[in-house]
Amino acid sequence: MSSDRRFGPSRTVTLSGPLRLDGGATLAPVEIAYETYGTLAADASNAVLVCHALTGDQHVASEHPRTGKPGWWTRMVGPGKPVDTSRHFVICANVLGSCMGSSGPASADPATGRPYAMRFPVITIRDMVRAQGMLLDHLGVARLAAVVGGSMGGMQALSWAATYPDRVRAAVVIASTARHTAQNIAFHEVGRQAVMADPNWRGGDYYDREPPAAGLAVARMAAHITYLSEAGLTEKFGRKLQARDAKSFGFDADFQVESYLRHQGLSFVDRFDANSYLYITRAMDYFDLAEEHGGRLADAFRGTATRFCVVSFDTDWLYPTAESRGVVHALNAAGAAASFVELSSPFGHDAFLLESPELSRVVDGFLRSVA
Amino acid sequence: MSSDRRFGPSRTVTLSGPLRLDGGATLAPVEIAYETYGTLAADASNAVLVCHALTGDQHVASEHPRTGKPGWWTRMVGPGKPVDTSRHFVICANVLGSCMGSSGPASADPATGRPYAMRFPVITIRDMVRAQGMLLDHLGVARLAAVVGGSMGGMQALSWAATYPDRVRAAVVIASTARHTAQNIAFHEVGRQAVMADPNWRGGDYYDREPPAAGLAVARMAAHITYLSEAGLTEKFGRKLQARDAKSFGFDADFQVESYLRHQGLSFVDRFDANSYLYITRAMDYFDLAEEHGGRLADAFRGTATRFCVVSFDTDWLYPTAESRGVVHALNAAGAAASFVELSSPFGHDAFLLESPELSRVVDGFLRSVA
Repeated sequence: MSSDRRFGPSRTVTLSGPLRLDGGATLAPVEIAYETYGTLAADASNAVLVCHALTGDQHVASEHPRTGKPGWWTRMVGPGKPVDTSRHFVICANVLGSCMGSSGPASADPATGRPYAMRFPVITIRDMVRAQGMLLDHLGVARLAAVVGGSMGGMQALSWAATYPDRVRAAVVIASTARHTAQNIAFHEVGRQAVMADPNWRGGDYYDREPPAAGLAVARMAAHITYLSEAGLTEKFGRKLQARDAKSFGFDADFQVESYLRHQGLSFVDRFDANSYLYITRAMDYFDLAEEHGGRLADAFRGTATRFCVVSFDTDWLYPTAESRGVVHALNAAGAAASFVELSSPFGHDAFLLESPELSRVVDGFLRSVA
Repeated sequence: MSSDRRFGPSRTVTLSGPLRLDGGATLAPVEIAYETYGTLAADASNAVLVCHALTGDQHVASEHPRTGKPGWWTRMVGPGKPVDTSRHFVICANVLGSCMGSSGPASADPATGRPYAMRFPVITIRDMVRAQGMLLDHLGVARLAAVVGGSMGGMQALSWAATYPDRVRAAVVIASTARHTAQNIAFHEVGRQAVMADPNWRGGDYYDREPPAAGLAVARMAAHITYLSEAGLTEKFGRKLQARDAKSFGFDADFQVESYLRHQGLSFVDRFDANSYLYITRAMDYFDLAEEHGGRLADAFRGTATRFCVVSFDTDWLYPTAESRGVVHALNAAGAAASFVELSSPFGHDAFLLESPELSRVVDGFLRSVA
C-alpha cells in the first residue's frame, strides 16, 4: 500500500514497509522523495537509477527548491546527456536518513508524532539501497538498466550490485570506494563532534528551536577540504588575500580561501539538517562491502552478470585511485565484466560533479555499450 | 632591564622591551618562559636554539609540568643525543603567543591588569624569532651555533636565518615549509572557526569562566588528522572496532580511530589555551618567507654564511617534500650551503617527533660537521 504525491517536479511516496534495517530495527512507514525524468518503456527495461552523494538530493536535473540552483548533475543527466533522459527513464531518490523528503531524523516518528531526531535508527548504505528497491517495486521497475553514482552514490551502486545482482544490468561507480578507511572515518568523526559540540544540538532535539548551525558549518568546512585537491586549492586561491589586499593582523577572513570555506559552511546549513549529517556520515563510515561478505570483496560479486564501469580521478585523495583499483581487482577476481579508467583532473574528489568531457564520454560510451 | 625567575627546570624572564611587531603594535614587557640545558662556553659559541611547533613548549627535554610526560624531543635533545647537551648549551623558549609562560593572549595586559585575550596583538613567525633574539641578548648569546626546529619550529629556523643571518651559523629545518599553502590555511581556519563557534569562547574573554573546550577539541581533532599519514592511520587503526567488537548502530566511538581522535581532542584542551591556538595558527598562516623578500624566496638568503640542513618525510602531506625541495632550490639559488634529505617513514608529519634513527643520524652528523 502506498500513496504517491507530487509537488512540482518532485514526488514523495509513502511506502507502508516495514523496512528491516541492518541494525535490527524496522522502519514503517518509509517515505521516499524522488524525481523521475523520461518515460519508462513498456517492458520497463530502460530505467536508470542515479544515486546521490552525502549532501546530495533527488534534484539531480531540476532546480533545488531551497537554493534555486540547477540540479547537481545536469552535466550528466538530461536529454542528449550521458544519462540520456530521452532514452532512459531516470530515477533519483533522496536517500534514507537525509532531509529532502525521505524518511530521516527530521521525519515524524509515528509512535509520537514528533521528529525522530536521534531516535531514528542508525542506517547503512545497504539500507538506503533496500529503500530504493522498495521504490522501484512501487514504480514497476524489476530490473535497472543501470545504477549510476559518484562518491556515496558509487557506494550505493556497488551495494546495489552486491545486494540485488539480478536487478542491476550495469553499474557505474565514480570517485568512490568499497569501504571507508581510517582517515575517511576520522574526518567524518571530526564533523560529527563539531555538530554534537554545538550546544544548540541538544542531543538532536532541536527541531522546534535554533539548529546547531555553527557546529554543522564547521563540519562542512572540514569535509569540504577533503573534496578538493591541494593543487586545486593552490591554483584557485593560493595565498591570495581578500579585496582589501593587505593582511588585517586580526581574525577576519584575510585569505580568499578562508572566506570561501566560511561561505561553504554557512550556505550548507541553510539547506541541510545536522542530524541527517550525523546519520549519513555514520552510514558511510560503516560501509565495508567486503565485511558484509566474509571479508573478501570478490565474494560480493561472485557469479554476477552485472557489468561495471569504475572511474577514479588522479587528484582525489578522499577516495584515491587505489581504492577504485581494489574494487576492480575484486571484480576481476569474481569474474565480473569491469572497465576501469583513472581520469586526470586538478579538482580532486569534486571532479565528478564538475564539467568533465572525459567523464561524460566514459559514462556515455559505457551506457550505450550495455544498452 | 630584566628579571629572570626560575621555577624548577623552567625559567621565565621579563624583558622590558618594547618589541616592535610586524603588525605595527609594540609589546612591553615581553615575558619569555624557557629552559636551558648544558653549559654555555666561555666564548658563548656552543648555543643551540631549539624551536617548538604549534602546540609545543619549552619543555623540550624535561617533564611537562601539567601532563607529567617526558619532554617532547627527548629523542633529539640530551647528553649524547644529536643535540648533545654535554657539548651544546641548548635553549628552548615557549613562543610568543603561546600559553606556557611566554607573553600571549592569556597574559595580563599591563594597561588593564586583565588578560589580553583578543586584545593581544596578532603576531608572526618573525615576531616569535625577534622575541627569541631578545632572550639570546639577555643570555649573552650573540651568535647561535645552530637553530633547530621541526614543523613550525622549522619555520622559525628559516626565519632566524633570514632575519638574523649573522647570528646563525647553522639551521636545521625538519618537516617544514617556507610558506603556508591554501590547504594549510584552510585546515587552520576550520580549527579557528571551531573555537570561535563555541559559545564559551565569548570573543576570547573566557579566562574567568569555562573555556571553549569543546571547540578547541574539535580543532585539535581536525589538525591531528593532518599530522598522520593515511597509510599510518590504516596501519594503526584500519577499521578496527573498540573492545566490544561489534558496531553499536549508535553514535558512540565504534571505531578505534574515533576513540583515539576524541582522546587527542580532550587531552589537548587540558594543556592548551584556545586563544593561543588562534594566535599561533594565524602566525603560521601568515608565514610566507618569500613574500617578506619581494616574492623571491632566494632573496631571503642572499649572501648568507649560514649552513642549512633540510629534512622532509615522504608521507608528510601537511608539509610535503615538495615544499622542502622548494626551500632547497631557493637556498641553492642564493648560493647557500644546503644539504637535503627526504626520509622514509610511515608516520606522516608526526615522524619528526618520533623515534627515527635516520633523523638522529642526519641531525647529529650535520651538527658535528658545522661545529
